[in-house]
Amino acid sequence: MISKKMENMVANSSAIRAMFEEGNRLAKIYGSENVFDFSLGNPNVPAPDAVKYAIKELLDEEDPVVLHGYTNSNAGYEDVRIAIADSLNERFGTHFCSKNITMTVGAAGGLNVILKSLINPGDEVIAFAPYFGEYRSYTDNYDGVLVEVSPNTTDFQPKLDEFEQKISPKTKAIIVNTPNNPTGVVYSEETIQKMAAILEKKQKEYGTDIYLISDEPYRELAYDGIEVPYLTKYYANTIVGYSYSKSLSLPGERIGYLVIPDEASDSEKLIGAVNVATRILGFVNAPTLQQKVVKACLNEKTDISYYDRNRETLYNGLKNLGFDCIKPEGAFYLFVKSPIADEKEFCNEAQKYNILIVPGSSFACPGYVRMAYCVSYETIVNSLPKFAELAKQYNL
Amino acid sequence: MISKKMENMVANSSAIRAMFEEGNRLAKIYGSENVFDFSLGNPNVPAPDAVKYAIKELLDEEDPVVLHGYTNSNAGYEDVRIAIADSLNERFGTHFCSKNITMTVGAAGGLNVILKSLINPGDEVIAFAPYFGEYRSYTDNYDGVLVEVSPNTTDFQPKLDEFEQKISPKTKAIIVNTPNNPTGVVYSEETIQKMAAILEKKQKEYGTDIYLISDEPYRELAYDGIEVPYLTKYYANTIVGYSYSKSLSLPGERIGYLVIPDEASDSEKLIGAVNVATRILGFVNAPTLQQKVVKACLNEKTDISYYDRNRETLYNGLKNLGFDCIKPEGAFYLFVKSPIADEKEFCNEAQKYNILIVPGSSFACPGYVRMAYCVSYETIVNSLPKFAELAKQYNL
Repeated sequence: MISKKMENMVANSSAIRAMFEEGNRLAKIYGSENVFDFSLGNPNVPAPDAVKYAIKELLDEEDPVVLHGYTNSNAGYEDVRIAIADSLNERFGTHFCSKNITMTVGAAGGLNVILKSLINPGDEVIAFAPYFGEYRSYTDNYDGVLVEVSPNTTDFQPKLDEFEQKISPKTKAIIVNTPNNPTGVVYSEETIQKMAAILEKKQKEYGTDIYLISDEPYRELAYDGIEVPYLTKYYANTIVGYSYSKSLSLPGERIGYLVIPDEASDSEKLIGAVNVATRILGFVNAPTLQQKVVKACLNEKTDISYYDRNRETLYNGLKNLGFDCIKPEGAFYLFVKSPIADEKEFCNEAQKYNILIVPGSSFACPGYVRMAYCVSYETIVNSLPKFAELAKQYNL
Repeated sequence: MISKKMENMVANSSAIRAMFEEGNRLAKIYGSENVFDFSLGNPNVPAPDAVKYAIKELLDEEDPVVLHGYTNSNAGYEDVRIAIADSLNERFGTHFCSKNITMTVGAAGGLNVILKSLINPGDEVIAFAPYFGEYRSYTDNYDGVLVEVSPNTTDFQPKLDEFEQKISPKTKAIIVNTPNNPTGVVYSEETIQKMAAILEKKQKEYGTDIYLISDEPYRELAYDGIEVPYLTKYYANTIVGYSYSKSLSLPGERIGYLVIPDEASDSEKLIGAVNVATRILGFVNAPTLQQKVVKACLNEKTDISYYDRNRETLYNGLKNLGFDCIKPEGAFYLFVKSPIADEKEFCNEAQKYNILIVPGSSFACPGYVRMAYCVSYETIVNSLPKFAELAKQYNL
């Protein structure tokens, strides 16, 4: 009796989520110290203390009717949006003001809101494999068609030639995610410039607007001092979707924002549509207490040393065991080549050692597996002997 | 460049929201004490102190990685869902367990999740006018068709004869809202029994499943000791959408739940679909801190005496001035007959006195206006002389 669309969705339901639930089941049986759950991007670093202090101060000093009430605009509190715009302008030399910012229920909420606002049935949305599998569901929610650019397994930078060929008059949006889930790759400034040039050219050729949607939950997680270019500066029709899930370790609180710059085509209309979409999709507004929290914590620095140690330890450990992978520059994922072509089978074998990893098929990139290293350092260290046994099994 | 669907949505955008924003604008000009904003159901009663204490205790005692992390299941924390099920069972003699409860981003999020799970394009959803205008948008999000039962302006109880005639083989769901927005009417047990009998009959006649969705943000706001029947006890295919927005005055925090009883057709499948819909629509999970807050505050009683005083004062005040309306039994709305047929014109006239009220057209019931009396008592008292001038203008 459920809808046909949902029948399919349930059947192809997230392998990541299923594995995360399986991890919790195994932890109950074997003890969590004996389960090596690399399945979900659920940060292991606690939210900074500033979050706790901010909440307590807000509770003591703000009128609860305002603090927990509907916001005047569905876009969120004006003061919060001003503070975010100012902070972005300071960091990236942009020129946003409050109207360019819409507070969202995390990045996932933001992506749904912007796709609902843009997509007509049959419109195409391009994503570069490997990509976060939910992009397909989000696009399908609005009867859009996800068009894949095949993975470049040499360095996992986007294949720009194929990208150019796949842009059609029906292309409405491109989703990029840098630092990338699942590869940890950061797109260089040169890549962004080339991508922007292709988009400009194709917009002119077809007389269309093509929006570049930058999904940025991992912006603050970049290692070795690498720069993550701010995309609105390279291409006018850029929309940014941000989340505090990873930067402040608040994934359960569902707080993020969209940036729609004045330079984007039909900016004003699009901002209006996003406002209405926020309401009618049932978000209504981003959770109010958390809006105020992120304002209070705008200058908090994400401590990436924790993830960095995990990154080094897992990457070096696996390389030494003979596994094949590139070193991530950002986010908290390692994308490892499966020693056998059928990576689902490899994941099943790993599970026999209580190692939970996600098949690359979930990211449109079979033959690889994703390991989320946002876990305790002990998990990494203790997993390595198990990975050693697994490597031996495959004669690595 | 925005999607065609959104073009229409933006054009017909919520008059309520527009008015709420207008109210804030006027307040800045004239001072909030001189603006009588009855536009939005944004509770004026602060959240109980227990909310504040619960949050502080959670911050001090829970592991932030868990408190602010993704929940193991998209349905929410297991302990929270158990506590809610137990509480419902105790209050209403039901037999729910945790799997029957899915935590949602308010009632609006819950309704979107359940409609996404149920509706195929062209499926019909029936609502009784006057109804909350968003039902139309929520249904349209999934290409469903909202079918209206015309208003019974005598007592605003549902027209059951017309209801029976409007059920078709395509009817997938009915949305009821009792206590009702915008009328304040509570459906009696007799009404519910008759409605259930009609649904049973039609299910048998067409060999279909018809789900009764009970939208219950106002359950705790019932006056004069009136009982609000718990609908799952009357009809097996009932789904309840609850929100803490009004009962705990937390509308901005976006926290509620869906109940899908075992007795509902395809219950297990539907629960699975709701889980997936929660994820792919971008909610992911209901805000985690607030999930724990509502668990801690399950035994808080909503203080309705504040709204009750407003209800009596506004109702009696307007009746004495010659306005025509029925006395609300629940919620915090008064639905008043416009002295002229064109109630939008009447709302415009009211606005000249800085009185903000919403046209009944927004609820599919032209000729009436809605007044949300979840405002300060002073607003009510001070508005009455303005209403008197307005009444005089129409020779009431």
